[in-house]
Amino acid sequence: MEDQKLSSLDPIVNLAKRRGFFFNTAELYGGANGLFDLGPLGLEMTNRIKQLWWRWFVHERSEVYGLDAAILTPAVVLEASGHTESFTDPLIECLNCHIRLRSDHYLEEESEEIFIFRWRDEAIKQRKLGESRATEEAHAAWIKLQEEKLLTCPNCETVHFTEPRQFNMMFKTQLGAVEGAGADAYLRPETAQGIFTNYKNILDAFHPKLPFGIAQIGKSFRNEITTGNSLYRVREMEQAELEYFVKPGEDEATFEYWKGEWYRFLTEGLGIKPEQLREYEHVKEKLSHYSKRTIDFEFAFPFGWGELTGQANRTDYDLKQHMERSGRDLTFFEEATRERFLPYVIEPTLGIGRALLAVLCGSYKEYPNGRDGQGTEMETVLHLPHHLAPVQVAILPLMKKDGLAERAQEIFKQLQPHTVAVYDETGAVGKRYRRQDEIGTPWCITIDYQTLDDGTVTIRDRDAMTQERISVEALVQRFSK
Amino acid sequence: MEDQKLSSLDPIVNLAKRRGFFFNTAELYGGANGLFDLGPLGLEMTNRIKQLWWRWFVHERSEVYGLDAAILTPAVVLEASGHTESFTDPLIECLNCHIRLRSDHYLEEESEEIFIFRWRDEAIKQRKLGESRATEEAHAAWIKLQEEKLLTCPNCETVHFTEPRQFNMMFKTQLGAVEGAGADAYLRPETAQGIFTNYKNILDAFHPKLPFGIAQIGKSFRNEITTGNSLYRVREMEQAELEYFVKPGEDEATFEYWKGEWYRFLTEGLGIKPEQLREYEHVKEKLSHYSKRTIDFEFAFPFGWGELTGQANRTDYDLKQHMERSGRDLTFFEEATRERFLPYVIEPTLGIGRALLAVLCGSYKEYPNGRDGQGTEMETVLHLPHHLAPVQVAILPLMKKDGLAERAQEIFKQLQPHTVAVYDETGAVGKRYRRQDEIGTPWCITIDYQTLDDGTVTIRDRDAMTQERISVEALVQRFSK
Repeated sequence: MEDQKLSSLDPIVNLAKRRGFFFNTAELYGGANGLFDLGPLGLEMTNRIKQLWWRWFVHERSEVYGLDAAILTPAVVLEASGHTESFTDPLIECLNCHIRLRSDHYLEEESEEIFIFRWRDEAIKQRKLGESRATEEAHAAWIKLQEEKLLTCPNCETVHFTEPRQFNMMFKTQLGAVEGAGADAYLRPETAQGIFTNYKNILDAFHPKLPFGIAQIGKSFRNEITTGNSLYRVREMEQAELEYFVKPGEDEATFEYWKGEWYRFLTEGLGIKPEQLREYEHVKEKLSHYSKRTIDFEFAFPFGWGELTGQANRTDYDLKQHMERSGRDLTFFEEATRERFLPYVIEPTLGIGRALLAVLCGSYKEYPNGRDGQGTEMETVLHLPHHLAPVQVAILPLMKKDGLAERAQEIFKQLQPHTVAVYDETGAVGKRYRRQDEIGTPWCITIDYQTLDDGTVTIRDRDAMTQERISVEALVQRFSK
Repeated sequence: MEDQKLSSLDPIVNLAKRRGFFFNTAELYGGANGLFDLGPLGLEMTNRIKQLWWRWFVHERSEVYGLDAAILTPAVVLEASGHTESFTDPLIECLNCHIRLRSDHYLEEESEEIFIFRWRDEAIKQRKLGESRATEEAHAAWIKLQEEKLLTCPNCETVHFTEPRQFNMMFKTQLGAVEGAGADAYLRPETAQGIFTNYKNILDAFHPKLPFGIAQIGKSFRNEITTGNSLYRVREMEQAELEYFVKPGEDEATFEYWKGEWYRFLTEGLGIKPEQLREYEHVKEKLSHYSKRTIDFEFAFPFGWGELTGQANRTDYDLKQHMERSGRDLTFFEEATRERFLPYVIEPTLGIGRALLAVLCGSYKEYPNGRDGQGTEMETVLHLPHHLAPVQVAILPLMKKDGLAERAQEIFKQLQPHTVAVYDETGAVGKRYRRQDEIGTPWCITIDYQTLDDGTVTIRDRDAMTQERISVEALVQRFSK
């Protein structure tokens, strides 16, 4: 069976809803843009991805410390970090229907014109350098685009937009008392700031030497205007992030080291095929306000290459900002050299929801004529890496009668404390195999008449579809590891 | 050594900061009320508590489904559930300095007067029943209290307050586009609504029979006016919650069943001593808007008895509300009886942060004259249940020299893939034992000269302080289970 390439996310999204991997939030009320709820199977996979990451990058490393900071972040932290100022997207608004669109996304789809990109890039550059000419030029280009009626509103089809303006993408709320009287706070736009504000606490409690890291898995929030592609562009996302503190000058070599480790996690840890990954280096002009260098690993999603992980060299930008703003000394004292300095930070990040989506896309396979190529019904299989499958083993009595169901239940109860097992007795056994294939269960155990005689069961391999007979004892031993 | 009772949380809070269990959020900037960041040790303990709960109530149960819903919740969901209307606290405001206080908490501390409680209870009752007389009476009582100058502002010491008014405790924000133009959303005040809005998805994907449950661990947010007692009353908290759906009429027996299971988790799972727990039954008049009956398990915190878990009989209130508001049929069809009805819901909940705090309080012990009672320095031990300890085993070379450190590092590397291990070579070994005792590490492994001779190490038990010699092979085997 050859690899087919998915041409759209639809089959994944349908499977996700039908079998319980994930659902659109508040679907009962028509759904909420860019918000998703993980169902039982998606959550189990997510937990497996997170635990694997934690084992690789925290438990098995002596120099990495775990952290879980609050989501609600007082404004002062994000003022210091530059997010209230620079965590923005360029939006245009239709003057007729008032819909707001991301000018960069919209124009990418709508026209070949690159004026607007120049406009945005120059505008960003200008904000940094204080030059006004770039803005004027870009503005002129924008006017021209509009006059030539090259921009049509996708909602009402009129042709008049505002100029792009920068809007902050953070969710704002207030701490304490009553609306209007409390202190401003934001839902964190990245988990990183919770790490930087605790850097000193980690120094004081653990006295690490350089290099050391602080790792965190948690939710971040971005008020994206253009959501879409299922779990890909969302407003609430889980990230696994590492801030790795090094001596200045060692940052570039450390950058290379983590690039390698991250790639190894994607390929060996998550089982993503190398040909579905590519490296993307951000051009200098488009770097985030804190970054000296950023690379992504992109995955070949059905809708195109999309960012799966990002890695930035944040230099000492964040620590310096927090040191200035808080007035606290955040320098690191290196005993060996008696030197005092601000460490540089290398930050590799993985989007957990995107990792789930990538693993699902990479494992999904349709067999139009069944697994044997001879049938008339399409069969679907998730060829998931075994250790990421949400159900590890299914226990299936051949029939309900003659004590087979009871024996199967006993075996199920024996396995349940050791793994994630399900029991299924409904319908023909072939149909039950297909149900398990569809959610990626690596092994199906069938209890048949021979089981009652000699205490053996069949174990079916999802991928090879081979069946072998083993004793119940061997089975239990196999899954208790 | 007799049990001492902690008279304050201070020793726990100090230990937490000094050794890295948890920190006040944004401490660098003076801290944020009611927000905490978990450090490496507190996070590891929290993860162990969560994973244990998940194993007990999800993995080892065939009828319970896991879920992880979004934190951002569109307003419509919380309008339907009654939270925008009823999730309120009574606040009074000082007319001089404008500080706002929870009238019930404030008055509980400040005076013996019970007028104001009557005021509040009657006011709540009145909102339900539409009676006005209760409010009038309570209002009169309030005026009288003020005239007698029984209420003094703790901030500015003037004596004039507004009447108590109900303020909503949810954090509000906006989805999409720009401030003022987006759709209202809230940070969920409980994880439960994400379960109710996915109930139909679970029915469609898994076809469960009654009774069945949906479980979730995640953060909830409450804009508490009076925060305090460390992790106890916070604005951002993690909850482990189960919504258990039963046939109406079976709710009361199921209520008893879950009360027992929950108690078993607290005592056998978390190792909390029965004498530190008591059951508290909410009086009918003070039940939440959705509840027919609520009980708590309270823990003997140093500041007094405090809620650790809650369990409510939510009846069919939530499903009924969502069915009405969404216009979607949420009834359950029971095949056996051919009946169609809305299930009742029993909801046991555990506060994860409070569980962490309770386990720490229950395990903390000071030995003023050292462990042997003969010393002059105080020693502190966390007698944590072994399976909850953040560090499972510490590897300590007796000295750094003569190859002991190298041998210890080898052993450390052998254990690290199987458990949470630390390596420590700094200072006298007795001091290192004390450092591990203070964070509750159950076992310390010492590598000494005999190790180099015969391949055995000593393993020291935190509680008994006994040391036994075992081979490195036996050690590795013990921790790889």
